[in-house]
Amino acid sequence: MIRDADNTRRRLLAAAAQEFSARGIAGARVDRIAEVAGVNKAMIYNYFGNKDQLFDAVFQEHVASALNDVPIDADDLPGYAGRLFDHHQAHPDGLRLARWHLLERGAGAVPETVQAANADRAAAIAKAQQDGRLPAHFAPDELLAVVVGLSIAGVTAGNPDDLAVRRRRKTITDAVGMLIEKGPAR
Amino acid sequence: MIRDADNTRRRLLAAAAQEFSARGIAGARVDRIAEVAGVNKAMIYNYFGNKDQLFDAVFQEHVASALNDVPIDADDLPGYAGRLFDHHQAHPDGLRLARWHLLERGAGAVPETVQAANADRAAAIAKAQQDGRLPAHFAPDELLAVVVGLSIAGVTAGNPDDLAVRRRRKTITDAVGMLIEKGPAR
Repeated sequence: MIRDADNTRRRLLAAAAQEFSARGIAGARVDRIAEVAGVNKAMIYNYFGNKDQLFDAVFQEHVASALNDVPIDADDLPGYAGRLFDHHQAHPDGLRLARWHLLERGAGAVPETVQAANADRAAAIAKAQQDGRLPAHFAPDELLAVVVGLSIAGVTAGNPDDLAVRRRRKTITDAVGMLIEKGPAR
Repeated sequence: MIRDADNTRRRLLAAAAQEFSARGIAGARVDRIAEVAGVNKAMIYNYFGNKDQLFDAVFQEHVASALNDVPIDADDLPGYAGRLFDHHQAHPDGLRLARWHLLERGAGAVPETVQAANADRAAAIAKAQQDGRLPAHFAPDELLAVVVGLSIAGVTAGNPDDLAVRRRRKTITDAVGMLIEKGPAR
C-alpha cells in the first residue's frame, strides 16, 4: 500500500510538473493533471490540498533537485557557474517553474527553501573570502547574485552540444573567472 | 477625429499593458481591458485584431521605449548596464511583459524589433573593439548577452533609493567594468 501511494504521488508530481511548466499556475488545470497521471482528481486534493499547494510541491521538488545536483563550490565559482548553466540547460522545466513563480507569486515571495539555500551559499562564499581563498571585492550575497544571475541569463535554446551553447557556457565561466581573479577596475 | 482615434488607441494600450503585465497573454481578458479603457470591446478588434496582436502591440511599445530611453554606449558599458538596470527597476511592467513573452511564446520567438536591436548593439560593440576602444576577449554578441543579462538579473524588489537597490546597481556596474577593463583569467 505504501508503495502504491508513493507511486501515485510520483505520477502526480510528474504530470503536474509538465502542466505547470507549460501553462503556469493560473493556466494549469487540475483535471488535465489527473488525466495525464491516470489518477482520480479527488486524489490530488487528498495528497496535496489545492492547486497552489500542488504547485508548491512541484516547485520545491525542482529546487531541491537543482541544489542537490549542483552543490556550491566556493573554491571554484567558474566551475559552479558552468554546472548551474548545464543544469538549467538540461532541465528547462525547472527554470520555467521559477519564472512562473516570479510572475504569478511576485518577486517578494521567495520560498523558504530558496532563502535558506541562498544563505548557505553566501556563507560558503564568505568563509572562502575570510580564509583568503577568494577575493573580497564583492560582498558574498552580491557575488552569489552575479554568479547565479549570469548562469541563468546565459541559458539559451539548444542542446549542450550546439556550438552556440558551448560558446555561451565558456562566456559565463570566463566572466565569473574574471570577476573573482582580479580586483574591480579603477 | 484623428485626435480621438489616437486618444482611444493610447487608452487601450495603457489598459492592455496593465492587464498583460499582471496576468500574461493567456490570462488576460479583453473584456477587462475594454472596461478599464472605457472603450467598446469591438474597438479593440478594430484597432489591433485579436488578443495576441494586442499583446504584440503593447510589447513592441515597451521594447521601443526601453531602446529609446537607454541607447547603447559601447565606450561606457558599465554606465550602459547601470542605465539598463535603472530602466528595468523603474519600469517593472516591461520586464514582466518580456518574461510572459518568453514563457508563453517560447525562447525561440524573439520579436524582429529585438533581433534588430541586438544586431545594432552588437555592431556598436564590434566597432569599438575594432577601433581598440574596447578589449576583444569576448565576441560582441556574447559581451552584449553578459551586460544585458547582468543588468536584468540584478533587478530586485524596491525603489531606486533603497540601500539594497543602490548596492546591487554598484555590483552590476563594477562587474561590467571588470569584464571590459581586464583580460580573461589564466
